[in-house]
Amino acid sequence: MTLTETTTDTARDDDTFLDSLCGRLRPGAVIVDPTALRTYECDGLTGFRVTPSAVVLADTTEEVRQAVLTCREFGVPYVARGAGTGLSGGALPTSDGIVISLQRMRAILEIDPRNLRAVVEPGVTNIDITKAAAPFGLHFAPDPSSQQVCTVGGNVAENSGGAHCLKYGFTVHHVLELEVVLADGSVVRLGGVNREQPGYDLLAAFVGSEGTLGIVTQVVVRLVRNPATVHTLCADFPSITAASEAVTRIIAAGIVPAAIEMMDALAIEASEAAVGAGYSLDTAAALIVENDGPAAESKVEFEAVEQICRDTGTTKIRIAKDSAERAMIWRGRKAAFAAVGRISPDYIVQDGVVPRTRLSEILSRIGEKAAESGLRVANVFHAGDGNLHPLVLYSEAEGQLEQAEELSREIAELCVEMSGSLSGEHGIGTDKACSMPRMFTESDLAAMWRLRRAFDPEELCNPGKLLPTPRLCGEKPGVYVPHALEVSGDIERF
Amino acid sequence: MTLTETTTDTARDDDTFLDSLCGRLRPGAVIVDPTALRTYECDGLTGFRVTPSAVVLADTTEEVRQAVLTCREFGVPYVARGAGTGLSGGALPTSDGIVISLQRMRAILEIDPRNLRAVVEPGVTNIDITKAAAPFGLHFAPDPSSQQVCTVGGNVAENSGGAHCLKYGFTVHHVLELEVVLADGSVVRLGGVNREQPGYDLLAAFVGSEGTLGIVTQVVVRLVRNPATVHTLCADFPSITAASEAVTRIIAAGIVPAAIEMMDALAIEASEAAVGAGYSLDTAAALIVENDGPAAESKVEFEAVEQICRDTGTTKIRIAKDSAERAMIWRGRKAAFAAVGRISPDYIVQDGVVPRTRLSEILSRIGEKAAESGLRVANVFHAGDGNLHPLVLYSEAEGQLEQAEELSREIAELCVEMSGSLSGEHGIGTDKACSMPRMFTESDLAAMWRLRRAFDPEELCNPGKLLPTPRLCGEKPGVYVPHALEVSGDIERF
Repeated sequence: MTLTETTTDTARDDDTFLDSLCGRLRPGAVIVDPTALRTYECDGLTGFRVTPSAVVLADTTEEVRQAVLTCREFGVPYVARGAGTGLSGGALPTSDGIVISLQRMRAILEIDPRNLRAVVEPGVTNIDITKAAAPFGLHFAPDPSSQQVCTVGGNVAENSGGAHCLKYGFTVHHVLELEVVLADGSVVRLGGVNREQPGYDLLAAFVGSEGTLGIVTQVVVRLVRNPATVHTLCADFPSITAASEAVTRIIAAGIVPAAIEMMDALAIEASEAAVGAGYSLDTAAALIVENDGPAAESKVEFEAVEQICRDTGTTKIRIAKDSAERAMIWRGRKAAFAAVGRISPDYIVQDGVVPRTRLSEILSRIGEKAAESGLRVANVFHAGDGNLHPLVLYSEAEGQLEQAEELSREIAELCVEMSGSLSGEHGIGTDKACSMPRMFTESDLAAMWRLRRAFDPEELCNPGKLLPTPRLCGEKPGVYVPHALEVSGDIERF
Repeated sequence: MTLTETTTDTARDDDTFLDSLCGRLRPGAVIVDPTALRTYECDGLTGFRVTPSAVVLADTTEEVRQAVLTCREFGVPYVARGAGTGLSGGALPTSDGIVISLQRMRAILEIDPRNLRAVVEPGVTNIDITKAAAPFGLHFAPDPSSQQVCTVGGNVAENSGGAHCLKYGFTVHHVLELEVVLADGSVVRLGGVNREQPGYDLLAAFVGSEGTLGIVTQVVVRLVRNPATVHTLCADFPSITAASEAVTRIIAAGIVPAAIEMMDALAIEASEAAVGAGYSLDTAAALIVENDGPAAESKVEFEAVEQICRDTGTTKIRIAKDSAERAMIWRGRKAAFAAVGRISPDYIVQDGVVPRTRLSEILSRIGEKAAESGLRVANVFHAGDGNLHPLVLYSEAEGQLEQAEELSREIAELCVEMSGSLSGEHGIGTDKACSMPRMFTESDLAAMWRLRRAFDPEELCNPGKLLPTPRLCGEKPGVYVPHALEVSGDIERF
């Protein structure tokens, strides 16, 4: 599955395209230097590298529009890119295509504390929105682990969640309005600041569309008031099953914590090696539970959570006594992905969802599959949502990449078999496009293709992502590829 | 603007269509009797009547599919219909088209208290979902005033809200999955029971699409736990301005009540004449505020609300001492629309939104416009959301209909001018389609047309609703009608 292509050092016959592109943009906006292009050849997805033929460093909506119009004129594919932290290959270019980088569009245009919103450009990092809102006691709720570097444009593309999405929801719940450049170069505004908005809700369809419906050039986000109080605990459990039972009981009690995270022994070992947050090294699983809200409410709920942990057999409960200790507990959790590098030369981050009540079951199935393949899997996950992030550890030097990718893919498909989802928050990208037919019927996928074709009939906007195609997936049995749609003379090219 | 058409008593040359329709459906499923068809000639929108050429009483998804396929074959337009309580003409047929009634599809297929969801057919009434969930301490949150009779299919089409949408959101926030029959007869499932769902979010686009993208044949809804405690008060204010100030301060304090409703003197007078809920007849405005949630939280917030009402000059506060008194306060509010019939022979219900901070301003503008036209306007509204429901009172017998429609339209467009919305929850339908260009640019409307055309290229599924067309709106200055889209050979028929 590893793909390495380079076209930049071969003679190009499309100089007219590049001339036209440079002619329409400010001097210096187009990168063609092969070494510089290397920066854009991959995102956070292991094993995929494709060098684009050029990169546009857009400064304005108009520059994005000019780049899109030029690509349309010459039939050149393009992909928008933020910080390149995505984990499913969504920001990978095609070898004959260009990258439109939005990282220079990082102005915070307005913070409006009275109406609880902010207007930002797509290249602003997630954390910078919260920093700008902090003086008003507000924050931007989505908090992916990469929030220090990932951009809000990427959050929109992937509908990012994070540890606190259990209570606060995903990016789609925190975006009020988008400015988007469509494939025909038109600039539209989707959604609106009123909660009640007539017309089709295209905003929700664009959030999470992985850059395949257009390029977001401005985002109006909702800001959330910082909670009056926050209570955080970290509880050790003698087994994954006991910890899972605690999660089930907390939810069944009608409590909605801000977050319920789980880590297994291997993930704890890695995190401790990197951060030293003080997690127990002799436990099978740890739960991090956080309750926030008005003082009266969060205290009562937090006490109930503590009692449930005791009832389900916790061996140790650590309660954060101040914000410094809470920050340390979270630092350990958020660093866990990267920390796995301390205990393994290479790893793949998988992302799947199962019904919360089947957490214990899937984790033992993952354990069995890992044992069969001889690889180790560390588990860090948003337990409250049933959103797993198994980390498949391997060594590329020892030739284990293919085996690791196979195990990782099996885990994702196992999630679907268990009435879950192929992806929680990392997206489908190139990584899982060919698995989509395991989750959706032919008609369901055809409905998605209709939307795609309506907005990008020439398929130049981030092609080969999200939806399966024969070029991408071949005609393998078990991999559904839609051949034709009954209705549509206008939707025939798959 | 009044439109009365009848085609049923003229000779028809499309017997082959009806023969084909009857041949594909069970005996008795197709109504063609002119008297029986009268039942389907209007919905809740004043002044519009169109008799359909036939009505299909569908029992199953397959029957809906057969009806759609037959319509497609013969090029006949169709509209799905629930209880016909809509207020914007969304369920009106065209004179050459048929109605597909979903009222017989009213099975509650599953109540799943463990996973907090229910699977229902589209003809189930809103209140029947809550009744079926009640034994488990659960309810369906959207609560439009028509909830005793309106169907969940209609709630999906209009993205219905209700008094409690301030805290609980709209129908789109409570629908997990839809089964939909598309215009080509394919049956798709949109959304899914996992919160994290990859692929395009077509579910959100279908909710609120006013029946123009397909026909919903099954709905998986989210059920919400009944709150542990509920506190309700009704506070009188000496002016609309004072009551609006209370609303602004409640929200600014970070309190999210379950509902904040306002009624003016005329609305109170009407409600008292009909229900006698005990509202004060000598007050300029009354606020109904409800706080719910865990005991500790809702009590603290309710006390804060009470204090804010006192600080802003309330003249009398009535606190519901038990659930019977609370029910009575709500009965008065929910009956207010119909109650207006007690003080006026005819009335139009308008529906618009303004930023909450401009409530007082729009209400005085409405007062001025009413005075100019010599008509009375009663105001009942979801103040917490800035969602107004001005009731324009008139007498058809005295020839005031046109004048009332003009005033009503002016009020809706005033909302847009004040950075608000043309419609809060009643929809656009035929009623406001020609006003859409006041709220959306040419490109924004073109984006909506793309979606419409992708799913219904022949425009047979509820044509003439939601989006402006030349046939509907003419080429009046100020009424934008999109003539062509740059990109799209496939989107040229407006």
